[in-house]
Amino acid sequence: MSAIIEPTKVILDFKKIIVKPYTRKKQVKLSELKDYCAYPEAAEKILSEGRDPIIYEYYEYGPTETSGNINFGLTVIYPGKIGKEYYMTKGHFHEKDGAELYLCLKGRGILLMQNKEGKAVTIELEPGSIGYVPVGWGHRTINIGRGKFVFFFAYPSDAGHDYMIVKEKGFSKIVIEEGKSLKIIDNPRYRGTSD
Amino acid sequence: MSAIIEPTKVILDFKKIIVKPYTRKKQVKLSELKDYCAYPEAAEKILSEGRDPIIYEYYEYGPTETSGNINFGLTVIYPGKIGKEYYMTKGHFHEKDGAELYLCLKGRGILLMQNKEGKAVTIELEPGSIGYVPVGWGHRTINIGRGKFVFFFAYPSDAGHDYMIVKEKGFSKIVIEEGKSLKIIDNPRYRGTSD
Repeated sequence: MSAIIEPTKVILDFKKIIVKPYTRKKQVKLSELKDYCAYPEAAEKILSEGRDPIIYEYYEYGPTETSGNINFGLTVIYPGKIGKEYYMTKGHFHEKDGAELYLCLKGRGILLMQNKEGKAVTIELEPGSIGYVPVGWGHRTINIGRGKFVFFFAYPSDAGHDYMIVKEKGFSKIVIEEGKSLKIIDNPRYRGTSD
Repeated sequence: MSAIIEPTKVILDFKKIIVKPYTRKKQVKLSELKDYCAYPEAAEKILSEGRDPIIYEYYEYGPTETSGNINFGLTVIYPGKIGKEYYMTKGHFHEKDGAELYLCLKGRGILLMQNKEGKAVTIELEPGSIGYVPVGWGHRTINIGRGKFVFFFAYPSDAGHDYMIVKEKGFSKIVIEEGKSLKIIDNPRYRGTSD
């Protein structure tokens, strides 16, 4: 935790999705995401056909978890749907007080945020727009376009990630396509909040 | 300090230099920068001719100074020199432990960093490269290109800025053009460090 951190140059290529150097890379396939989906039966069907598509991946540079530092990187969410629900990240809350910012570089997406009381807010992101997630708000990103949705993210290095609360309770809203229209509706599988 | 912060969408246009909404805008002209210059007599000469060019400006979105939040924005440094020295920012140290990242969007620049012991490190920035300033390192950005040098920055909202230490002591290195070449040399006006 107390490694000496030297000034560093990091190369970012959002066309080829390169972050160099990176300290963490993660690829999330459908099999890992299925418990977060609003339509798990649709996920099971795809998996039962022997397919396990990559939903999203990210490259992150995190110098340390020491307070005062910032982690950052690139996320790409591929285009597609699981049932009616657009491809999305799992989403998470931060364990400590820590905001996050998302700078859209390519494609179209939605940043879905929810506070501890269950209040949900969405922001649509297109290239050049930034979604600011204040301290205390859980957040998920969703690809609502036909191509890759690519964004730059940054958050305090010591924020920590709580995915379990999302896995257990879900977000109160989901983003779906119905009758060729985008809809943001109540999540039928939302398991409520507890304070 | 304890304002309720709502999720926010911020538009960033690095061609037109727009950050909307922003909470802070600053334009630094030569008259304000002259005490930071390695060749103050060159600055005085320009000012004595009745000119006071804009050296750089920035737009910042800072939701609050509460710990865990992140300030961010755009800086543009115009091209030019004061004597041999390229146009640059004043530079600062953070008052508290706080890193900073600079993502170059346009042009060419140098990120000059210096730790409390006076050790200097430079990173060259071109579009898509990020300079990471670790906790404890002072930093200044310099436009070494022929066009605008534009970058996105982000840092912890509670970091604070100490410009005075730079005004009083300077950085140990300066970036100049000599014989049509870029040189990074010892600052002849550096007033040392004290621990």
